[in-house]
Amino acid sequence: MELKKYKHEAPYSYTLGMAPTLELIQNKPDMIDKIYVHPNYTPKDEIYNIFDVCKGAHLVYEVNKKIFDRLSMKENVFVLGAFFKYDAPVSSDRPHIVLVNPSNSGNLGTIIRTGLGFGFKDLVIIRPGVDPYDPKTIRSSMGALFHIRLSFFDSFEEYKRQFPTHEIYTFMLKGKRLLSDIAPKPDKPFSLVFGNEATGLPDSFLDYGESIFIKHSKEIDSLNLSIAFGIAANAFSIDE
Amino acid sequence: MELKKYKHEAPYSYTLGMAPTLELIQNKPDMIDKIYVHPNYTPKDEIYNIFDVCKGAHLVYEVNKKIFDRLSMKENVFVLGAFFKYDAPVSSDRPHIVLVNPSNSGNLGTIIRTGLGFGFKDLVIIRPGVDPYDPKTIRSSMGALFHIRLSFFDSFEEYKRQFPTHEIYTFMLKGKRLLSDIAPKPDKPFSLVFGNEATGLPDSFLDYGESIFIKHSKEIDSLNLSIAFGIAANAFSIDE
Repeated sequence: MELKKYKHEAPYSYTLGMAPTLELIQNKPDMIDKIYVHPNYTPKDEIYNIFDVCKGAHLVYEVNKKIFDRLSMKENVFVLGAFFKYDAPVSSDRPHIVLVNPSNSGNLGTIIRTGLGFGFKDLVIIRPGVDPYDPKTIRSSMGALFHIRLSFFDSFEEYKRQFPTHEIYTFMLKGKRLLSDIAPKPDKPFSLVFGNEATGLPDSFLDYGESIFIKHSKEIDSLNLSIAFGIAANAFSIDE
Repeated sequence: MELKKYKHEAPYSYTLGMAPTLELIQNKPDMIDKIYVHPNYTPKDEIYNIFDVCKGAHLVYEVNKKIFDRLSMKENVFVLGAFFKYDAPVSSDRPHIVLVNPSNSGNLGTIIRTGLGFGFKDLVIIRPGVDPYDPKTIRSSMGALFHIRLSFFDSFEEYKRQFPTHEIYTFMLKGKRLLSDIAPKPDKPFSLVFGNEATGLPDSFLDYGESIFIKHSKEIDSLNLSIAFGIAANAFSIDE
């Protein structure tokens, strides 16, 4: 394939930089088309020499300056991994993170990475929402995207129909219970549901299950989405 | 004064956008030099009409396009508040947030805002570190900067000498205790200490007081600084 600047419609995407490319190689080697290396690349330490990694994983690589000029914007990127997007739908017996209309790639990447840190490997996006395969998202997830399963729905109702037994926890400013009052170790699969960065969840989400407020002072309007997510994911963290 | 693009050395800074400018007006009116309004400004609702706000607060305003072209980059900014930097050192009988060499303005702003949400109004920065008066920081704090007190030190030792009775909690990957095992309601003033985004705290911080690890899975190297901060600040949150 000829690699062009990422578009949502494209069947492929790419990682920018060493860390996400290593995660791609370790977790989704079969989806890789090719690894590109900038002629100015210099291995920083032996463990992560990209040429050795590629050889060890039997991956095709190519030293190519043009592709970096074309794809990687102003940042200092010397390694790039082109891969085909794949289907890895969420598991029905695992807890889910559900993001309703997320609008910021950086936040989405941070949420994916933070969620993984607390044992969450199943992410649902209710559309419209930013694209998890966007190289910006992949980069801010630092490659955590390649560890998780992903499903998309056009509405929360549709999601609920497919996973009717998941216990629903919605995080809202109007939430009826405080996070600190909840002993969050549900036995059965559950869903942590978060709204859009600017608007949060609509009031209709108050009645889907347990609605939760993370108590904060009145001196701020709300917590950032990724901060609220981190606090919730830590409280509900899954030990394996 | 003639307002130029922000420099660390300048005795003044400015807010970009309505939300941080309102916080400036409400919290530090005496430090304001002038409010600038873009000719394309249109009030969105009556409560926040900038002209009324300025009149109510007896503040000088000026409609001026050039200054926006010069200072506000590509973003859609229609209100700007120029102010003189001020001294508001941290209180010796309140808990402190201590950031050692923070390197990202966006993170710093998020931390200021999140901290305020959990009752922390005293921030210490161990230099070198990013500038809290940078308009980017102010913007990502959404104006929370104007609610807090700020002190700077050239080393943690120097900070310790000035506040010898604060109980020290350092957040580190090598922390000896888990956050979840701590009942974090110290009676006396305490300091939550965090390292640089990329490097964390050096090992020497293991022995200053209680060192804490926020448990996460091995699938990620570490939590983002602002996420780790949010989780810690929530756990230690101060009810007034």
